[in-house]
Amino acid sequence: MAVHGGDPSRTGELREPRTPEGHALLDLLTGHLAQIQAEAEENDRKGAFPAETFMNFRKDGVLGATVPAELGGLGLSCLHDVCLALLTVAEADASTALALHMQLSRGLTLTYEWKHGGDAAQRLAERLLRAMGSGEAVVCTTVKDAPRVRTTLTPAPGGGWVLSGRKTLASMAPIATHFVISAQTGGDGGPPVGAAAVVSRQAPGFAVLDNWDGLGMRASGSVDVVMDGCAVPEADVFLRGPVGAHSDAALAGQTVSSITMLGIYTGIAQAARDAAVDMLRRRGRTPAGAVRTLLAEIDAQLYALRTTVAACLATADYFSYEFEGDLAERGRRMMHAFQRTKLIVNRFAPDIVDGCLTMIGGASYSAANPLSRFYRDVRAGGFMHPFGYPDAVDYLSDVALPPGE
Amino acid sequence: MAVHGGDPSRTGELREPRTPEGHALLDLLTGHLAQIQAEAEENDRKGAFPAETFMNFRKDGVLGATVPAELGGLGLSCLHDVCLALLTVAEADASTALALHMQLSRGLTLTYEWKHGGDAAQRLAERLLRAMGSGEAVVCTTVKDAPRVRTTLTPAPGGGWVLSGRKTLASMAPIATHFVISAQTGGDGGPPVGAAAVVSRQAPGFAVLDNWDGLGMRASGSVDVVMDGCAVPEADVFLRGPVGAHSDAALAGQTVSSITMLGIYTGIAQAARDAAVDMLRRRGRTPAGAVRTLLAEIDAQLYALRTTVAACLATADYFSYEFEGDLAERGRRMMHAFQRTKLIVNRFAPDIVDGCLTMIGGASYSAANPLSRFYRDVRAGGFMHPFGYPDAVDYLSDVALPPGE
Amino acid sequence: MAVHGGDPSRTGELREPRTPEGHALLDLLTGHLAQIQAEAEENDRKGAFPAETFMNFRKDGVLGATVPAELGGLGLSCLHDVCLALLTVAEADASTALALHMQLSRGLTLTYEWKHGGDAAQRLAERLLRAMGSGEAVVCTTVKDAPRVRTTLTPAPGGGWVLSGRKTLASMAPIATHFVISAQTGGDGGPPVGAAAVVSRQAPGFAVLDNWDGLGMRASGSVDVVMDGCAVPEADVFLRGPVGAHSDAALAGQTVSSITMLGIYTGIAQAARDAAVDMLRRRGRTPAGAVRTLLAEIDAQLYALRTTVAACLATADYFSYEFEGDLAERGRRMMHAFQRTKLIVNRFAPDIVDGCLTMIGGASYSAANPLSRFYRDVRAGGFMHPFGYPDAVDYLSDVALPPGE
Amino acid sequence: MAVHGGDPSRTGELREPRTPEGHALLDLLTGHLAQIQAEAEENDRKGAFPAETFMNFRKDGVLGATVPAELGGLGLSCLHDVCLALLTVAEADASTALALHMQLSRGLTLTYEWKHGGDAAQRLAERLLRAMGSGEAVVCTTVKDAPRVRTTLTPAPGGGWVLSGRKTLASMAPIATHFVISAQTGGDGGPPVGAAAVVSRQAPGFAVLDNWDGLGMRASGSVDVVMDGCAVPEADVFLRGPVGAHSDAALAGQTVSSITMLGIYTGIAQAARDAAVDMLRRRGRTPAGAVRTLLAEIDAQLYALRTTVAACLATADYFSYEFEGDLAERGRRMMHAFQRTKLIVNRFAPDIVDGCLTMIGGASYSAANPLSRFYRDVRAGGFMHPFGYPDAVDYLSDVALPPGE
Repeated sequence: MAVHGGDPSRTGELREPRTPEGHALLDLLTGHLAQIQAEAEENDRKGAFPAETFMNFRKDGVLGATVPAELGGLGLSCLHDVCLALLTVAEADASTALALHMQLSRGLTLTYEWKHGGDAAQRLAERLLRAMGSGEAVVCTTVKDAPRVRTTLTPAPGGGWVLSGRKTLASMAPIATHFVISAQTGGDGGPPVGAAAVVSRQAPGFAVLDNWDGLGMRASGSVDVVMDGCAVPEADVFLRGPVGAHSDAALAGQTVSSITMLGIYTGIAQAARDAAVDMLRRRGRTPAGAVRTLLAEIDAQLYALRTTVAACLATADYFSYEFEGDLAERGRRMMHAFQRTKLIVNRFAPDIVDGCLTMIGGASYSAANPLSRFYRDVRAGGFMHPFGYPDAVDYLSDVALPPGE
Repeated sequence: MAVHGGDPSRTGELREPRTPEGHALLDLLTGHLAQIQAEAEENDRKGAFPAETFMNFRKDGVLGATVPAELGGLGLSCLHDVCLALLTVAEADASTALALHMQLSRGLTLTYEWKHGGDAAQRLAERLLRAMGSGEAVVCTTVKDAPRVRTTLTPAPGGGWVLSGRKTLASMAPIATHFVISAQTGGDGGPPVGAAAVVSRQAPGFAVLDNWDGLGMRASGSVDVVMDGCAVPEADVFLRGPVGAHSDAALAGQTVSSITMLGIYTGIAQAARDAAVDMLRRRGRTPAGAVRTLLAEIDAQLYALRTTVAACLATADYFSYEFEGDLAERGRRMMHAFQRTKLIVNRFAPDIVDGCLTMIGGASYSAANPLSRFYRDVRAGGFMHPFGYPDAVDYLSDVALPPGE
Repeated sequence: MAVHGGDPSRTGELREPRTPEGHALLDLLTGHLAQIQAEAEENDRKGAFPAETFMNFRKDGVLGATVPAELGGLGLSCLHDVCLALLTVAEADASTALALHMQLSRGLTLTYEWKHGGDAAQRLAERLLRAMGSGEAVVCTTVKDAPRVRTTLTPAPGGGWVLSGRKTLASMAPIATHFVISAQTGGDGGPPVGAAAVVSRQAPGFAVLDNWDGLGMRASGSVDVVMDGCAVPEADVFLRGPVGAHSDAALAGQTVSSITMLGIYTGIAQAARDAAVDMLRRRGRTPAGAVRTLLAEIDAQLYALRTTVAACLATADYFSYEFEGDLAERGRRMMHAFQRTKLIVNRFAPDIVDGCLTMIGGASYSAANPLSRFYRDVRAGGFMHPFGYPDAVDYLSDVALPPGE
Repeated sequence: MAVHGGDPSRTGELREPRTPEGHALLDLLTGHLAQIQAEAEENDRKGAFPAETFMNFRKDGVLGATVPAELGGLGLSCLHDVCLALLTVAEADASTALALHMQLSRGLTLTYEWKHGGDAAQRLAERLLRAMGSGEAVVCTTVKDAPRVRTTLTPAPGGGWVLSGRKTLASMAPIATHFVISAQTGGDGGPPVGAAAVVSRQAPGFAVLDNWDGLGMRASGSVDVVMDGCAVPEADVFLRGPVGAHSDAALAGQTVSSITMLGIYTGIAQAARDAAVDMLRRRGRTPAGAVRTLLAEIDAQLYALRTTVAACLATADYFSYEFEGDLAERGRRMMHAFQRTKLIVNRFAPDIVDGCLTMIGGASYSAANPLSRFYRDVRAGGFMHPFGYPDAVDYLSDVALPPGE
């Protein structure tokens, strides 16, 4: 696993944090890694969520890492450093990293609301962030409706809203205390508006299922949640623009929400490479020519993976925090870098893992060999939000050659 | 799944049998396919061997397909047709096909012993073949010693041999009645000789473990078997040449033993493609450009896969049954075609399955989606006996550029 | 270069002819190969057409190979054998093979007209075939209009037609005596009809330019021809159906016209592999692991290339000569096999050549090294008629998932 | 071609200089680009060196860019900025960039000698640098002996040395005024020592041949030079260590000498992509799905290429100028990053160019289409000094898994 020793040349390889807060988070995580790694195989096999790890994360402040310091958190806002933290956790267990991503990315986007949102949004964001900073709140955010379902907010007779629907792929839900549920408003006479409702786990009508059963990422708790007429106070809803209105400016938030997941698949690739090299070393003989060739290619791919992701994060950090130009341009530039990098991650990370299996041979095909878990986990990268491969191709092709131009 | 309707242009695509016996076997199998496919997911999940399917195979003669007709079998000897049968079963469930391969390939190699072996080998082969033909014997053959074990035959005080050791990856062992165990002789004063001992499941000292736990092929029952001083009569042992003596002629038998497994991975790729196309069709809209591109590439790869395997089998059938030249040349030509084809199968079959996941998107990542099983099963192809990738590279490179030439 | 010694297992690898006529053509070609190879570099450099080679081809009957025996030719009709002949020539020089393809494929399609066309078409085809059989006619066929040109046939005042327009990529034109020019009729009051006009090189208004200047295939003479009001007698025009009317039956003729070109790119790949192995052998030391890995992969790819092309040709031969079912089905099956194979050829052939350059290193980058010519020539495969890559993808995708189904 | 407008997020994409000197060089180059691009096709076709461009470079100081300001140059020492300059020139013409690389990289390594070398080396370096800074000297450096030749320095009777031998791939030699020739000493009784002799073009016995004839990079003037007993004063020779003594510290100099060439192949890929997009745009219709897919992949690859090269240069700049640790470690770290990046460049740059040809179709196969030149030029990247692919594999494999560990 990564060691962080102060060599500035390594920042460009996604090996060294850029900020003191990033260092602080890595220091907090370091103490957990051995335990996370030790439990990974069994949790994967059982599809069990590592609840104890998250209790520990909660206790020592990991879950408040991206909450501003003034609201009780570590104050980490650097996307590079969040991504490096997820990469480091993913080297030990990718499922844990995927669940942790939920909380950390929520801290980042809520901080943006707190600083730049309208008054109501600022208040709601501050309330949530303070609860995250104190360790009281663990916040699971869900974007994707279950198949053939539309999640809606309808006005409640006495004010506030009623939330109904079903969400899928709610990673970390097994231990979340609060849920941010994207929904459309309706039934209030106006045009439907995009919204995000904050619901407590204890809310009547709210249920967390235990139905996650993936090819990989089996310990991430990516279950469904069901809302059957949950009452939501007006103050607990973020209201956005009209449904279907496209805004390039919104691409920035979508990028911040998801870009740090690139570290997860990079971490799996790194772990696979390190495990394979370790197994080869223990064999104690010069590997065959084909293994040497694969190893050189793997190390080159891994280098490209780490440097491309690092560059993409530098761009995202610049546009998030330093850029003062047009917001639409900002959104486009962030998403453009993100999607190009995602294509590379989803080409190289599975390829690296596959090459590791080939180097090691039949032993890697046992369910007890970590490479067989990496082989399943790494394939989730292709389905990262936003944009699966076909949509990413259309997005990038349209950027290069705008339709109707 | 494949339909076999009498179009001679399809033989070159591994779609039509070449012989009446091949047709007969496919006819027998057809009735089982729906049941095999229906059970595949649950058996995979539980790692359960499809024992009932094999009982049915036994009853209606599938397990005697490659036993000569005079000894009570179907008399199928065409490698192309055996491979096509395995491909067809693998479209329904690859684990079942892998286990079935054990019995069918044993019929082929025992028939060779029966026709061309020494007197003792002929008698032993005939005995086994008759038992396979009547449905009495289900024969599991194991080649690979467990790690750090050497399986040996030592002379028994009163004549015959004592067999000790442990074998791994004994597919179909859960329901096998007999085992052919490769071993080295020792302790008889002479140089060690390669041998294969036939042991009954009931033999004292013989145990079938329940320890198979693979990334995929989970229903194939590829467990370990342990021999703890089993007594083996002299008549139940095939004796080969001195250990370590290289014989190019022996490459022929190794090819016959394993080449039909190419159909298994071709079948998985075909099943993945068909499942994905079916899912796309049910979506009822024109797929995105990236999906169309992947689909065209997949169909081209699948065509190359089927035709290359078919050509390789035609070569193997020719050398097995028609060639009358030098036996070393025969062995080399068979293995050369086999290994080159294996590289292509292990490049294209996983690539096709991977492309199917990409076409379908996140839905394919659910353990309940058959594509997620195909993704795991297809990766076993890289570890098919003989020659993993590094050894295959060395083999092929040496053929092209003989060392010391 | 290929040696043809009578091993039936090699037919499936595109190494042995299937018919006596195929053997006869290979025998005729054998005597020319050394000279063709010796001139290849200089002709490539100068962009010079190998006119003397074609004079020799004419003298000894090569140019009449696909003319029926009753009309004075060799009577070769087997697509597999024509493709093998082109492959063999392409190993010596791909440009020569591309030009020769013009004449050989014309013989095949004219023979079809002679046997199955209307009366007028039969008479015209017979006239041309007899002239090809006697060595009098060398026939260049051009399909592709020059950019922004439409080649047309308009009725001549006194009967017959007037041909005007410009065609491009007319390989072998430098020494052709006759040209078959595809055109649309017009100006006769009826709807435009597809047609093919036969024009003599001496026809007033007809000109062969000297403007071929390709990245590769530089000796193929793939120039433009210009028709400036050439008079064409009615008897010298093949009339087809209305322009734009789609006919799946016509896919058969398009396949026959072009499918044997697959041999050209296979031949380049084989020549590159053989040249590279020869250079490695002369270095006289064990190659590095990366070279061994590349070599094994190249030999596997080449095997897949040869066997896939052979299978595709077997299908095309079956549908051309044995199939008695629906003509639309026949056309679709032929084109489907052809296009899938073409994708594989255009993936593997350039990949093999590229791997050869990598194995050999900087020496291959000299223009005097044959690998540098192969690198340029092989890239033409991507542009083979019909269907470039984007159209092939659309074609294959529509076959797999018919639109509107 | 690149525009450099002051966006800090672009430095990580190799689009913005890091230093004022880098900006100054780009400003100088900007005025030459249109002319370089306009002449590229004809120079390529003729294999002609762009002598006039280099006269202009000489006049306005481009050829002194990497000479320290105190010695009359621009004082550019940032590898990132030199690489960006070469990338920018390569977008217009890669041959010109390859020749320019000779002079710029020589400035960098001579500056190191001037600062850190022994007294004699400092004096010689200063002399050469001053001449380069004033525009008087154009310095071609050659490392590679011609096949079967060993270039040697033997003691001259009256003091000094006699230089004999032949060097190959001496890019820019057609207009060089001075040559730095690597050689071994011999005949002086001591063990052979590595050396580099500085020779004037006018030196008796020195000849520049006109024999460059490559697949691509045809205007780079990469000819042979012949030394037939040239007298070299003792003061004009850099003496290194014993021949064959391996020094990891020396890897640093080798990296600095060659790493900026990565920009050349990146520039070709960028130019191919931009040319193809421009051609697609002029067609004025939505491209087919396969083209859209290729375009998205190309843009992702290009992004990875630019960011990986930029990260590798940042590492090289850090170790060149800021690192104060162990020199062997410094050399290893620089070469390790360089070689991994080179593998990626040589995978992606040709792949991008190839994809552009596929997007554009047959029109790209004309020698007059710039894509056909890019296709040839880009293939030179695989042969960049130091380490061709097989040696790079061995190098990287040994780093990952040190032999004998």
